[in-house]
Amino acid sequence: MADMNKMVSEITSMDEDFAKWYTDICRKAELVEYTSVKGCMVIRPYGYAIWEHMQRILDGMFKATGHENVCMPMFIPESLLNKEKDHVEGFAPEVAWVTHGGSEKLEERLCVRPTSETLFCEHYANIIQSWRDLPKKYNQWVSVVRWEKTTRPFLRSREFLWQEGHTIHATAAEAIEETERMLDVYADFCENDLAMPVVKGRKTESDKFAGAVATYAIEALMHDGKALQAGTSHYFGDGFAKTFGIQFSDKDNKRSFPHQTSWGVTTRLIGAVIMTHGDDNGLVLPPAVAPIQAVIIPVAQHKPGVLEKVNEVAAALSGVARVKVDDSDNSPGWKYSEYEMKGVPVRIEIGPRDIEKGQCVLVTRHNREKVFVSLDDLPTVLPEKLKEVRDGLYAKALANREKHTYCCIDKADIIAKLEELGDGFVKAPWCGEEACEDDVKETTGVGSRCISLTEEPSDSDVCVCCGKKAKHIVYWGKAY
Amino acid sequence: MADMNKMVSEITSMDEDFAKWYTDICRKAELVEYTSVKGCMVIRPYGYAIWEHMQRILDGMFKATGHENVCMPMFIPESLLNKEKDHVEGFAPEVAWVTHGGSEKLEERLCVRPTSETLFCEHYANIIQSWRDLPKKYNQWVSVVRWEKTTRPFLRSREFLWQEGHTIHATAAEAIEETERMLDVYADFCENDLAMPVVKGRKTESDKFAGAVATYAIEALMHDGKALQAGTSHYFGDGFAKTFGIQFSDKDNKRSFPHQTSWGVTTRLIGAVIMTHGDDNGLVLPPAVAPIQAVIIPVAQHKPGVLEKVNEVAAALSGVARVKVDDSDNSPGWKYSEYEMKGVPVRIEIGPRDIEKGQCVLVTRHNREKVFVSLDDLPTVLPEKLKEVRDGLYAKALANREKHTYCCIDKADIIAKLEELGDGFVKAPWCGEEACEDDVKETTGVGSRCISLTEEPSDSDVCVCCGKKAKHIVYWGKAY
Repeated sequence: MADMNKMVSEITSMDEDFAKWYTDICRKAELVEYTSVKGCMVIRPYGYAIWEHMQRILDGMFKATGHENVCMPMFIPESLLNKEKDHVEGFAPEVAWVTHGGSEKLEERLCVRPTSETLFCEHYANIIQSWRDLPKKYNQWVSVVRWEKTTRPFLRSREFLWQEGHTIHATAAEAIEETERMLDVYADFCENDLAMPVVKGRKTESDKFAGAVATYAIEALMHDGKALQAGTSHYFGDGFAKTFGIQFSDKDNKRSFPHQTSWGVTTRLIGAVIMTHGDDNGLVLPPAVAPIQAVIIPVAQHKPGVLEKVNEVAAALSGVARVKVDDSDNSPGWKYSEYEMKGVPVRIEIGPRDIEKGQCVLVTRHNREKVFVSLDDLPTVLPEKLKEVRDGLYAKALANREKHTYCCIDKADIIAKLEELGDGFVKAPWCGEEACEDDVKETTGVGSRCISLTEEPSDSDVCVCCGKKAKHIVYWGKAY
Repeated sequence: MADMNKMVSEITSMDEDFAKWYTDICRKAELVEYTSVKGCMVIRPYGYAIWEHMQRILDGMFKATGHENVCMPMFIPESLLNKEKDHVEGFAPEVAWVTHGGSEKLEERLCVRPTSETLFCEHYANIIQSWRDLPKKYNQWVSVVRWEKTTRPFLRSREFLWQEGHTIHATAAEAIEETERMLDVYADFCENDLAMPVVKGRKTESDKFAGAVATYAIEALMHDGKALQAGTSHYFGDGFAKTFGIQFSDKDNKRSFPHQTSWGVTTRLIGAVIMTHGDDNGLVLPPAVAPIQAVIIPVAQHKPGVLEKVNEVAAALSGVARVKVDDSDNSPGWKYSEYEMKGVPVRIEIGPRDIEKGQCVLVTRHNREKVFVSLDDLPTVLPEKLKEVRDGLYAKALANREKHTYCCIDKADIIAKLEELGDGFVKAPWCGEEACEDDVKETTGVGSRCISLTEEPSDSDVCVCCGKKAKHIVYWGKAY
């Protein structure tokens, strides 16, 4: 219940200290709480409800694209993790090792899954014999563990919740199509449901997932001008299949190696929402994932008829949106601050004078616009307003990204623009050489985020580093 | 896809070898697959979909009774687990220990949660100050690990999926009411949705959860006459609160210790469904949790108009039930066996002659009854049939339990009845002494499953062991 000390004034302002502003929101909006296990957090009801809405929407999108949920064990025997060389090199340094079961030392150490490619491969080898067994399009909603040194709620934690899709196909073409399709699913979800514009791209060789042929990602720009990787989709070719001995008989009875993908998004998306839409009054939630889409606050609730009317209005809205009535004994002013802090998209105020006029005051969180709405029209107006909020959030985030995307021609230009305009995406051509990628990072501080999938360099574009002919348009940035 | 070798005849008959019959179903109905991690399994799409339906229904029941979902870390520091003496004694011998993160040895070992009371207590201590903060009614859907020696799919595995409810209340009365309410929720779910009758009872002192004041359980009787604990609900009193320093200021500003509960059900319920309803043709699923509630099998599907009609019928049923059309190139006979094996409650056959007559053949899995249904009536008849299936399954399971519940007066009677009638529930009065409980177990082989909550001994009832005045009616049995 309400803690009267918790006031909006307690949030650090974004401009003063962005990192502190972020953790203030995480704590004061009651999304997370720390625990005695370093780097692991409690996701509290309000934070978890946001994740449940993300899950529900994404799970529907996965099922609509033909995927089935499964559940693999959380443990991976050391020998199984070690099978794929690149993969183990990428993950072994950051896994948690189980060495004892009860009082007995295990014969073989087990790692707590950092990701489950090896388990899926072992399973595929057991269940795939013929072309009739393909494709398998699996997903699981689980938590994984990576032993990070520095941690921050949602953005980087030792245990985090995610979904990992794993699919296996008869042909490379089909697997590549799947990789791209799931990147599109993620981008659609982020843009439509989270109101967060993303850049779709491919990672450079040095930034690929351990064991992948190609890694695709969606990148979003946060309020502070830093980039955040919001989802990844990997194409594995038949490398894992060869290592794990997964083969199938095709229609001509020839033995072939199938092609694989994996793709994932995590609770990091909650961090992305905070840092894309939040402001100095707290969280601002896109309606699709808001646990409460509209809060109704009675004014002068002790006066006869107010609470009755408020409950009547709430009942009329019950099939329309996720609505909460706050009839606690806190003051309306306190409640306004509380639900602003919690990022509830729409606030509805109803007092005796409103009731007399058959109206209410409707305030949208993201722009604090106030309008009077007739109570009869509310069930029609509220969904329109929620749509307006989503569109308004998206437009604002897109404008911010555009303002902070700098087209640069050389390293000096990058340094100058970042200095003058602040952190942001640097959009600049690249020759494709790793040496130039490293040089840009070292000289300017921005690393390659992704190679654009939609933009190609013109004939006259040259690498931002070496001045040779450019092969790609790359988004560079400082990253979370 | 279909494996032509997989035929019904391959299932071991229940009477021949019940344990093998069980694992045959788990494997051949594609519920689980083994992995290289001993005692951990892959839950395959068909098995996981059953769990998803269980989750969806239970989660709705939890939310309707005022609970919120959260997510705690999967790790518990050794010192935190050690805080509550009874609790750690109960769980420490069977936990998995993480000792290393990456290449570094941890300063303190972490156990993979076997259950999360200690984490919830630590969290409560952080967030509860006043009576306004109470109650907290939390639940989480996670997996837990217990390092069991012998394992069987769903029934006993080293990692299993479950939900754990954890609540904390200002008064003992409120916490006890919660403990009982959640036992009722579990019983309602098992009886209504899983069509599985349960006995509601209280565990004896020796069989309580580690750290609990009282443990309540629902017990079900399996086909082979063994008892299965299907869910538990614990009342903790204020013991954990005292150990973990959880206090709140009441309305008079006096500091008090709150009272706690926890309650859980697991993927073991899938095992319960298999062993309550399954038969020698395979799985039999109660409609509420069946991934496919009705399968439509076209007969002579190459003939013009058959597939068109089948798809039209499926479309008409789309809002009515979870319906699948199998138009694969396997024979109708193979398909009949396949979906019997998979326990699909209703099979609908549609061939050219049926189409001429505007009808279909509808077969209910549990009793193999065949009826002709007019295609126009199907959207009305199908839900009725699904209800009939649930009721039929429940009646059959209840009759089986009644047939195998033996009222006994002394140990010789128990031995004689079990010998004559086979394993089952023994219903017999008990004096309340642990020595008698142990003696019964040792002499007759059946242990106390639970003390009935609804039945009281009469004045003349005497303990089945010592002959002294009886205090309780106890259900005894051999247990999974």
